[in-house]
Amino acid sequence: MKLWNCVRETPVFSRKPWLELSDHHLRLPDGQEIPDWLWVTTPSFVNVVAVTDQDEWICFRQQKYAVPDITLGIVGGYIEEGEDPLSAARRELQEETGYTSPEWTDLGNYAIDGNRGCGRGYLYLATGCEYAGGEVTDDLEDHELLRLRQHDVHAALEAGEFGVMPWTAAVAMALLRYPRSNT
Amino acid sequence: MKLWNCVRETPVFSRKPWLELSDHHLRLPDGQEIPDWLWVTTPSFVNVVAVTDQDEWICFRQQKYAVPDITLGIVGGYIEEGEDPLSAARRELQEETGYTSPEWTDLGNYAIDGNRGCGRGYLYLATGCEYAGGEVTDDLEDHELLRLRQHDVHAALEAGEFGVMPWTAAVAMALLRYPRSNT
Repeated sequence: MKLWNCVRETPVFSRKPWLELSDHHLRLPDGQEIPDWLWVTTPSFVNVVAVTDQDEWICFRQQKYAVPDITLGIVGGYIEEGEDPLSAARRELQEETGYTSPEWTDLGNYAIDGNRGCGRGYLYLATGCEYAGGEVTDDLEDHELLRLRQHDVHAALEAGEFGVMPWTAAVAMALLRYPRSNT
Repeated sequence: MKLWNCVRETPVFSRKPWLELSDHHLRLPDGQEIPDWLWVTTPSFVNVVAVTDQDEWICFRQQKYAVPDITLGIVGGYIEEGEDPLSAARRELQEETGYTSPEWTDLGNYAIDGNRGCGRGYLYLATGCEYAGGEVTDDLEDHELLRLRQHDVHAALEAGEFGVMPWTAAVAMALLRYPRSNT
């Protein structure tokens, strides 16, 4: 199975650091050429499913512009220039919640859009979290920190209450790693 | 908790039907205004986790441009103009695999990007699938249909082999719905 080959890239739009568009001139394995395959570059980000040493799952009840109503969310944010994803995950966890974790599980990293890229999302599970302080409250969007039981997180997930795709992916992956419980 | 209000929308880029950009002029609950919140419109899509009446999980070994290597994938595609998401899911399942399903479970629909939209993904689990024919092979990208056991799908998911975020979300949600098994 042969991969597509990008032989030339032409910028078409830029609104750094949020979004850039370019045309990829592609050569397919059968010789076919596509001169203007639109490629989207957006910042890569982390999401963290954080569980405290008391088995509480740290979530937010929050506003998020792309979700039509109040939604459940998890820790997350953009990876900064020169920062590795795990460091970004540790930073975002502490900035958004004041918690730190001694136990990090890599839940994988994924293209956001299979055709056009749109950045990569790095997902983590942080367990044994303890409160250490150090929150930074610079978010424009309202949010309220919640500490939920696993079965409530599971029920909320299945009810579609985590309104953004990477949050749903991360929470579902984290629940698969956990023993099913009635706690 | 109050939502942000978009008071005006100004188009800034269009490459229909694939992508459009616009600036949303936002008014925040505290009165702050953001005149140029970039909003991305891309086509909404479906993804389907399909399991046959023999408990085989239908996946693809495939090329996908935004994934650096060969990846595992699932059924999916864009929702057509005027089509409802479940109809799109049924159509994509049959076009891509020749299978049809009598049992559809809605796994929810999610904003792809919590800040900028980027379309919505509608996820489904289709069980009891049987082969009926009617495949349409118009995909530019190479793919090979696989019928995997549940525990192999689970292992591949945890190894990060489903390279695109909505696929990982859909497969993880589907596995959570299934009893854990050693089949």
